[in-house]
Amino acid sequence: MTDPLPEDLWPDVRPDAARRLMAAAIESFATRGYHATTTRDIANAAGMSPAALYVHFPSKAAVLSAISRSGHEQALEMIQSVVTSTDDPVEAIQSIVQRFVAWHAKRHRVARVVQYELQALPPEEYQVVADLRRRTEQLVRDVISAGVASGRFKVADIRSAARAVLSLGIDVARWYTEGSKPSPGVLGRQYGELVLGMLGA
Amino acid sequence: MTDPLPEDLWPDVRPDAARRLMAAAIESFATRGYHATTTRDIANAAGMSPAALYVHFPSKAAVLSAISRSGHEQALEMIQSVVTSTDDPVEAIQSIVQRFVAWHAKRHRVARVVQYELQALPPEEYQVVADLRRRTEQLVRDVISAGVASGRFKVADIRSAARAVLSLGIDVARWYTEGSKPSPGVLGRQYGELVLGMLGA
Repeated sequence: MTDPLPEDLWPDVRPDAARRLMAAAIESFATRGYHATTTRDIANAAGMSPAALYVHFPSKAAVLSAISRSGHEQALEMIQSVVTSTDDPVEAIQSIVQRFVAWHAKRHRVARVVQYELQALPPEEYQVVADLRRRTEQLVRDVISAGVASGRFKVADIRSAARAVLSLGIDVARWYTEGSKPSPGVLGRQYGELVLGMLGA
Repeated sequence: MTDPLPEDLWPDVRPDAARRLMAAAIESFATRGYHATTTRDIANAAGMSPAALYVHFPSKAAVLSAISRSGHEQALEMIQSVVTSTDDPVEAIQSIVQRFVAWHAKRHRVARVVQYELQALPPEEYQVVADLRRRTEQLVRDVISAGVASGRFKVADIRSAARAVLSLGIDVARWYTEGSKPSPGVLGRQYGELVLGMLGA
């Protein structure tokens, strides 16, 4: 594993074995793709038996669902916490972009599964995740709208601007690797500045 | 097929059967992922026998390589043609973004394979595609540098700005579907305006 997955990535996941299986699944999906990965591959990568996997997850799709839901919940909570911490849309969008971009760089392997494996989710789980995504996008649109209303931003189409802001973060997961420069934190700050320009701040 | 693939997508590919196989591969990869797709799946989707596939492509990887190389060559040629058509960096970057974004929206299924299946390319083919990507990024950096040099753009880090510009286009392939709004052309123009702001034009 080139991207260590410390406890703080999934603080709510217990026991350790479940977390180890989620980390092993991310490695396996990254290597083979979701569809070509078996529960045996995941169990092996975690140093466990397939039977031990089923103690924690009923299926491969359940492992994916746990990873995806956790990632989407974390993104939503991060943006919510920024939004509740400031009334200044410039400060809010800059902080959101910094943190969103840095997370996608630092956790690029997890982020790839979270962002690119939506189609493989079971329908019910997909609905949960789609709702988390809608709420996340809506928060970003609200911040941009507030900035436009107060004259701090100048944007022709709020929906497209919000998509562009999130795209800049999400696409980092596609290209960022362990050897990439700049560091996640620096990239986040650079993109935060670029987004302020994009929104006419 | 929800995304018809007219002749103009691969004008250089002959005969029709090869083009049909590439189109069928895009459908199969989109449904199952590259790794879980077999040459039989591709042949079936094209209404051909596996033996008939091997007349045109020695392997599944060869079909992927043809799709990937063609997509990367088209992107590079498009950007080269814009760069040679104008000396104005503002006009150049706006035109590049408009066309790059619109292509990723209109051809989102092809673009997903082109942008997200690099890891599955055979090593030699990967080198070819990586070189096409480097040249494409360099052209975008050159346009931004020219704009900074002439005082038309104001950018702290040219490399990160160029990545961000390309990210905005590439990520469109992830979320755009047949039902998405606005149209590829309108989205391209909106993103062209957003990028001008991002670069401080």
